[in-house]
Amino acid sequence: MNAMSDIEIARKNEQQAIKPITEIAQQIGLQPDDIEQYGSYKAKVKLATLAQQCVSNAHRLILVTSINPTPAGEGKSTVTIGLGDALKRLNKRAVIALREPSLGPVMGIKGGATGGGYAQVVPMADINLHFTGDMHALTSANNTLAALIDNHIQHGNQLQIDQRRITWKRVLDINDRALRQVVIGLGGPTQGVPRQDGFNITVASELMAVLCLATSLSDLKQRISKIVIGYNINQQPVTVADLKVAGAITLLLKDALKPNLVQTLEHTPTFVHGGPFANIAHGCNSVLATQAALKLGDYAITEAGFGADLGAEKFLDIKVPQLGKHPDAIVLVATVRALKYNGGVALADLKQENIAALKAGFANLKRHIQNMQQYGVPVTVAINHFTADTAAEITTLQQLCQALGVQAVDTNVWAKGGAGGIDLAKAVITSLAEQHTYQPLYEPQASIPEKINAIVQKIYGGKKVEYTAKAKRQMADFAANGWDKLPICMAKTQYSFTDDPKQLGAPEDFTIHVREFVPDLGAGFLVALTGHVLTMPGLPKHPAALDMDIDADGNITGLF
Amino acid sequence: MNAMSDIEIARKNEQQAIKPITEIAQQIGLQPDDIEQYGSYKAKVKLATLAQQCVSNAHRLILVTSINPTPAGEGKSTVTIGLGDALKRLNKRAVIALREPSLGPVMGIKGGATGGGYAQVVPMADINLHFTGDMHALTSANNTLAALIDNHIQHGNQLQIDQRRITWKRVLDINDRALRQVVIGLGGPTQGVPRQDGFNITVASELMAVLCLATSLSDLKQRISKIVIGYNINQQPVTVADLKVAGAITLLLKDALKPNLVQTLEHTPTFVHGGPFANIAHGCNSVLATQAALKLGDYAITEAGFGADLGAEKFLDIKVPQLGKHPDAIVLVATVRALKYNGGVALADLKQENIAALKAGFANLKRHIQNMQQYGVPVTVAINHFTADTAAEITTLQQLCQALGVQAVDTNVWAKGGAGGIDLAKAVITSLAEQHTYQPLYEPQASIPEKINAIVQKIYGGKKVEYTAKAKRQMADFAANGWDKLPICMAKTQYSFTDDPKQLGAPEDFTIHVREFVPDLGAGFLVALTGHVLTMPGLPKHPAALDMDIDADGNITGLF
Repeated sequence: MNAMSDIEIARKNEQQAIKPITEIAQQIGLQPDDIEQYGSYKAKVKLATLAQQCVSNAHRLILVTSINPTPAGEGKSTVTIGLGDALKRLNKRAVIALREPSLGPVMGIKGGATGGGYAQVVPMADINLHFTGDMHALTSANNTLAALIDNHIQHGNQLQIDQRRITWKRVLDINDRALRQVVIGLGGPTQGVPRQDGFNITVASELMAVLCLATSLSDLKQRISKIVIGYNINQQPVTVADLKVAGAITLLLKDALKPNLVQTLEHTPTFVHGGPFANIAHGCNSVLATQAALKLGDYAITEAGFGADLGAEKFLDIKVPQLGKHPDAIVLVATVRALKYNGGVALADLKQENIAALKAGFANLKRHIQNMQQYGVPVTVAINHFTADTAAEITTLQQLCQALGVQAVDTNVWAKGGAGGIDLAKAVITSLAEQHTYQPLYEPQASIPEKINAIVQKIYGGKKVEYTAKAKRQMADFAANGWDKLPICMAKTQYSFTDDPKQLGAPEDFTIHVREFVPDLGAGFLVALTGHVLTMPGLPKHPAALDMDIDADGNITGLF
Repeated sequence: MNAMSDIEIARKNEQQAIKPITEIAQQIGLQPDDIEQYGSYKAKVKLATLAQQCVSNAHRLILVTSINPTPAGEGKSTVTIGLGDALKRLNKRAVIALREPSLGPVMGIKGGATGGGYAQVVPMADINLHFTGDMHALTSANNTLAALIDNHIQHGNQLQIDQRRITWKRVLDINDRALRQVVIGLGGPTQGVPRQDGFNITVASELMAVLCLATSLSDLKQRISKIVIGYNINQQPVTVADLKVAGAITLLLKDALKPNLVQTLEHTPTFVHGGPFANIAHGCNSVLATQAALKLGDYAITEAGFGADLGAEKFLDIKVPQLGKHPDAIVLVATVRALKYNGGVALADLKQENIAALKAGFANLKRHIQNMQQYGVPVTVAINHFTADTAAEITTLQQLCQALGVQAVDTNVWAKGGAGGIDLAKAVITSLAEQHTYQPLYEPQASIPEKINAIVQKIYGGKKVEYTAKAKRQMADFAANGWDKLPICMAKTQYSFTDDPKQLGAPEDFTIHVREFVPDLGAGFLVALTGHVLTMPGLPKHPAALDMDIDADGNITGLF
């Protein structure tokens, strides 16, 4: 490992080696006219250009996912980037597609969302700050819709919207707990109608999910018009189409819909576009960006948020139908540290060799491997190497995987960039040759409980599902509205297969509790809320913002 | 006049004639390395490039201002653009500097803020929507600061901030009356400390004023650190420096600080940057953009918001000291229609010739002319031509101006572009040759009431000023804090010289009522609130958003 921090590595290498984005675009056949530059190192790709290309079976899609996240760190984005760089070193036309970071958390906790070490995307500060303005466009569109709703009520409420049943919340791309529950419209008759409201973080908005699942500008408008913003006094849903503002809201997202192109430190073309929360939404980058990576590269490498039980399951069951292409290979990222943590070792003791704990914690990885195999996609395990890992631990882990018919490859892209991922890249290429038949987990026509049962039993390894009275009432309403044919988006803690974040490893015989549903008709899924899911984070006692600075020449410190 | 709408003219001409922004940049000596492109037709200019150039006396600054705005329309931005185009047609190196539109009002009322007819800046839709993200960066920085304040209180409130006396509000670039008065922090101990709060529109934020007055990145940070966010339990001011987040907030504005370069339909280089409200703030584009226009052109043409009593007074008394250069010529925009309106004619009857009403309404223009002459700057009147204007009306107006020693030029840039402004441009060039000695209205060292008296008596034509008990208490506090040496930023209705929007023409013997002060220490001025000033607009019963649309190919309708 290297003694430099991520921003030091990024800055040093950016200055030495970052290439004009026009050159990166040219690598994948894009001419200056096909892109819209945002400064010298960022660009959006025009939708018309992408629409002219198509995806054939020769284009290979590689999905990177991981075990359940732990405080020990897994490094999924880092491995995704390193794998792309390694494929490029093997002279493969590789294009990466990643999620776009949210600014809110950047101000809270040190550490960006652009990979790490020598496996990073650049320009890192820009990507982690305002980037090309996608988050701000979403914030703007979301809150314009909110203002139009309250304005409709203020001016006579022709649609008879029940202000106690407005489900459309305002958003900010900021960690701001004080806005979770608010009362608005105070101050008398000219200042709006008072009601309870709340703010979510922008990435938790339905609009973000909509943007990420839309396949074109007209599909985006179609989806936006279907969004349910609340209910009228007869408890009938009220949509954006009813408000007649789908055009205006789509207009505000016309540029945000275009995928953003940047590069890795090794100049691998990388799309960084869209980043819905993986707990409340589907947690994957945009369909258009993944399609762009597929169209413009021979190998498209992408990732899904959190562990494979949340991110990959949603990638496969929600995103794949929109994408029109399933992954040809899945890479499961695990670390010796995180598996030992799953095996009961305390955070402070993770540097000590502990084969027994590793074997115990392997249960978590094992279930994820078997889950992914259910879909019929070849699986490779990437052991993201940390300095304290011992040879015995690596060997043990490899043997445990071997027993499941899966290759586990020691990967060291943080310290070595693409060179540290060559073995992984070769193993993935080998796995791509395996015969396989993709099969989805459930059919959309199944009932809501059938779909949830499939997820809980076949992915989480749980026994049964309990619904609150409210959830049961909602399922009946949804069926009456014809919404029950939509896929399910589980909102569950990322730390456990169960809905209790403290249950590590691979628990069995447990029950999942569905508290409530949220119908995201624009995104085209039903969110099932289990346990408590936070949609507006807070800042810590010592937020990262306190250590940030910029000097007279624009040099940034404390960002990472 | 032309039968096409502004967006039709803009679209037709944009498609035919818009030039790559690199070419526009080259016209004023900027190489591709000096700018950061945002798409093909927008760019930010690097601060390092601008810092290398200086302003000499040979560079001429022309300030465009107007009579008090009326519903009849004055067309100040249109004349500013047309004058720039006309100077270019006369082979002068002209560079325009305008304010940046706010997205909030765009969704409310049809009509952009990028000129009109054949005197427009393009790409007009982009400029009126997200543009280069400056407004969003300001929203983000403003609300990050707000979140950091509430987070500080949540985690123990070391600074003993009195949550009843927090003056820093949240903002959105949206017309949203329901957010004017809110209660935040509800929901129990983990959701923040409950308190009353409110949202302003982004352009009304102190940060916008700060951005527009900052002369460099380090000056920006210095100003941000001085911002007073509220008071502690001992009623002592609490600043951003006390919170230790000036670096983080500045970081979020590092790109927003760079002036944006676009072009007119006739390819005149135009900076569009910064747009603080002219009622609550100083209403001018950024110091850096105006300086850029001065440095890169021989003639810099810029405008100030609302009428000359608000915008030009603040330009001269607040912006000029930061700019380090006073205007060499002032253009006062008036229309026959608006003067007749000032003379008592109803809106519906403005198309009929009415010399008597024109003469009566001229009182308004006359006072503005004399006000500008007080500063010692040569004045030219631009009669912004409307089709219904009669020859007799134009001649009358010209004679009335002539009697004051001022040339009034019939100007027709809406219908003819730069060709319609040639006479105006020639008159302005002539006026630039006049000997003159600039003198400010007041000295900053004067006391607060002395400065306000100077504005009320010498500019508004009023008799005296009355202060509430609160305003008097504040003046004493400010003097104790040493804040009384700052210039005054009057917050007053734009429709009248008085603080009553219904008093048109040139009222006399009136009293101005100062209700309260707001110390904007980052901006470096004291806002004096007179009457009721709205800092968060609402949407109308039929908001413009309802008529907007975008088709599958990205063609926009209903935006203007």
